[in-house]
Amino acid sequence: MKVIINGKTREYQAIWMEDKITICAIDQRVLPFSFEIFKSKTIADTCNAIKEMVVRGAPLIGATAAYGLVQAAHLFKGKEVENFLSWMKEAAEKLSLTRPTAVDLFNTLELLIELLDKKITIQENILALEKRTQKIVKKTVEDCKLIGEIGSTLIEENSRIMTICNAGALATIDYGTALAPIRTAHNQGKKILVYVNETRPRMQGGRLTAWELMNEQIEHYIIPDSVAGYLMQQGKVDCIITGADRIVLNGDTANKIGTYTLSVLAKEHEIPFYVAAPKSSFDRKTSTGKEIKIEERDGDEIRKALSVENEEDSQPKRRFIHNISSANLNPAFDITPAKNITAIITPKEVLRPPYNKSIKKFLEEKN
Amino acid sequence: MKVIINGKTREYQAIWMEDKITICAIDQRVLPFSFEIFKSKTIADTCNAIKEMVVRGAPLIGATAAYGLVQAAHLFKGKEVENFLSWMKEAAEKLSLTRPTAVDLFNTLELLIELLDKKITIQENILALEKRTQKIVKKTVEDCKLIGEIGSTLIEENSRIMTICNAGALATIDYGTALAPIRTAHNQGKKILVYVNETRPRMQGGRLTAWELMNEQIEHYIIPDSVAGYLMQQGKVDCIITGADRIVLNGDTANKIGTYTLSVLAKEHEIPFYVAAPKSSFDRKTSTGKEIKIEERDGDEIRKALSVENEEDSQPKRRFIHNISSANLNPAFDITPAKNITAIITPKEVLRPPYNKSIKKFLEEKN
Repeated sequence: MKVIINGKTREYQAIWMEDKITICAIDQRVLPFSFEIFKSKTIADTCNAIKEMVVRGAPLIGATAAYGLVQAAHLFKGKEVENFLSWMKEAAEKLSLTRPTAVDLFNTLELLIELLDKKITIQENILALEKRTQKIVKKTVEDCKLIGEIGSTLIEENSRIMTICNAGALATIDYGTALAPIRTAHNQGKKILVYVNETRPRMQGGRLTAWELMNEQIEHYIIPDSVAGYLMQQGKVDCIITGADRIVLNGDTANKIGTYTLSVLAKEHEIPFYVAAPKSSFDRKTSTGKEIKIEERDGDEIRKALSVENEEDSQPKRRFIHNISSANLNPAFDITPAKNITAIITPKEVLRPPYNKSIKKFLEEKN
Repeated sequence: MKVIINGKTREYQAIWMEDKITICAIDQRVLPFSFEIFKSKTIADTCNAIKEMVVRGAPLIGATAAYGLVQAAHLFKGKEVENFLSWMKEAAEKLSLTRPTAVDLFNTLELLIELLDKKITIQENILALEKRTQKIVKKTVEDCKLIGEIGSTLIEENSRIMTICNAGALATIDYGTALAPIRTAHNQGKKILVYVNETRPRMQGGRLTAWELMNEQIEHYIIPDSVAGYLMQQGKVDCIITGADRIVLNGDTANKIGTYTLSVLAKEHEIPFYVAAPKSSFDRKTSTGKEIKIEERDGDEIRKALSVENEEDSQPKRRFIHNISSANLNPAFDITPAKNITAIITPKEVLRPPYNKSIKKFLEEKN
């Protein structure tokens, strides 16, 4: 992704490994106020990076877990393959306990742990793990670009597109899921306008998506989440595109809290509601949305908001915007039922209802 | 209303006159971080108090305008009745230009200006104005209590009630419109739980409604506006009650931005959606919601949020929560169509569809 720092444009990905044990990631807790690189040299730090949302976004959480296993492999001190395998399973277990909703985390960990083999040496295992991780990372980025190509066919000239949270390069190593069709349409020269729901409580829309769109010079508005219905009512929204933290077999989709509301509003106004996601965000083991665990985060995320004293201040602090002793409810996700989803944009094709059939077929295909 | 300051409970109204020209109001810009009384001794300051939202809420804006005219009358220096009447009309004009959506402002100004009479002395005019203003203030509070009594019949034991913005004592001199049935049900000993939409961008829910409920010890949660749909989907909301900035003849209702979204969600989940309002919030001159002017406020209200450094800090500052150069859209209200409104709770009766008939009848009744 393009990042403009002090007027200079540089290329970044959301995460990379600096050496065998050092995971580097753009620190998404302090953007856009400050551009900082978070470095983790331990499994505990990598777990915290996911928990504390240094990194977030389903595909990026998956990639972080993959790098976490590579890191863990190189941190292993023993000589026995069996101990190595136990060590790796323990690392995978720790990584899996960081956040419950994004399925990419579990899919990636499972895929990599299944790769390990007690019949080959530790070195051979590490090599296989590294190779596969590189492949996953490469494929994640390629898939996002394919989502962009395929999704851009759904975006007409002069489209006004609404999105929520951040399903951009920052959520997916590079390019994005929901933002991929937007980037591609923009690069094709289509004139588009993006309405960015600010996405309380953590403001991933206002902080991260707006930052990406600014870097790409794509025209956009930041709106309070409560303005979305008003814009749809006024006929000012042509389509909605969101990412996904988990898509289950019937098409029900977990995504950032507020997504469900947008889907109800879209249905009311007959506006197409699209979900964009790679295969890693599909949950082959779950039939309906009711079975998805919704993460409840600390109420302090609602009571406090990241702020700066002036526009140039690069030291954001979490300050109290609510100071009375009210209880807070802070579910991080909600479930959008399949019936509210017009189509699911994947790297391979646009899936349409009935999803139990189209998703089954999609998951059975190679790649 | 009960106000707990340093552990002591006192009784306050949202606005009062200290002497002939001094209007006092609880400064709603800094609550709940700081409890301060704003004082205005000039028409310009009274206008600013409305514009800058020292006072807000449709009935309270109406009351402020009434006090503003009393203030203006006492500030008049001349001796000719005709000059007095011109001066008063000019004051009314200034007050009417402060905010465009709440109709109580225009209704109250019109009612009081029509009262003035060039055939009686200035002193007699002032006396008539003061008497009528006292009557308006008294009636506003009484009407809120009646809304409470009538509305409480719609609230069952163990109800979980959702509201948005602040339609409490702070919006109406005392007791409230949407909060009136909640207060009354609570005082009747009914067990209730209130979900308070925090109401971005100005957080009137999280700052003002939560503060009132805390003072009354009514159980409540502050929720991000994006959580409302999730709670309804989970079957956790029994009814929604909002206030109104303007109800037109067909029942279409202007209220705080986000209200329309709640009404769509309520319809989707078959949850009763109630609007509570006194007669002064009805617009006799407007047929449908399309004709209502929606106030667009400064985008800085979205970019900045009131915050404090710690829970005891009583010096809130507006700090940047968005610092990039994105455009912002900041409509202050939206229109909920009559078809989404289950009933309108008035001081006289519960109005039901078809509203063109029930509203017409209600407006024709005395009182």
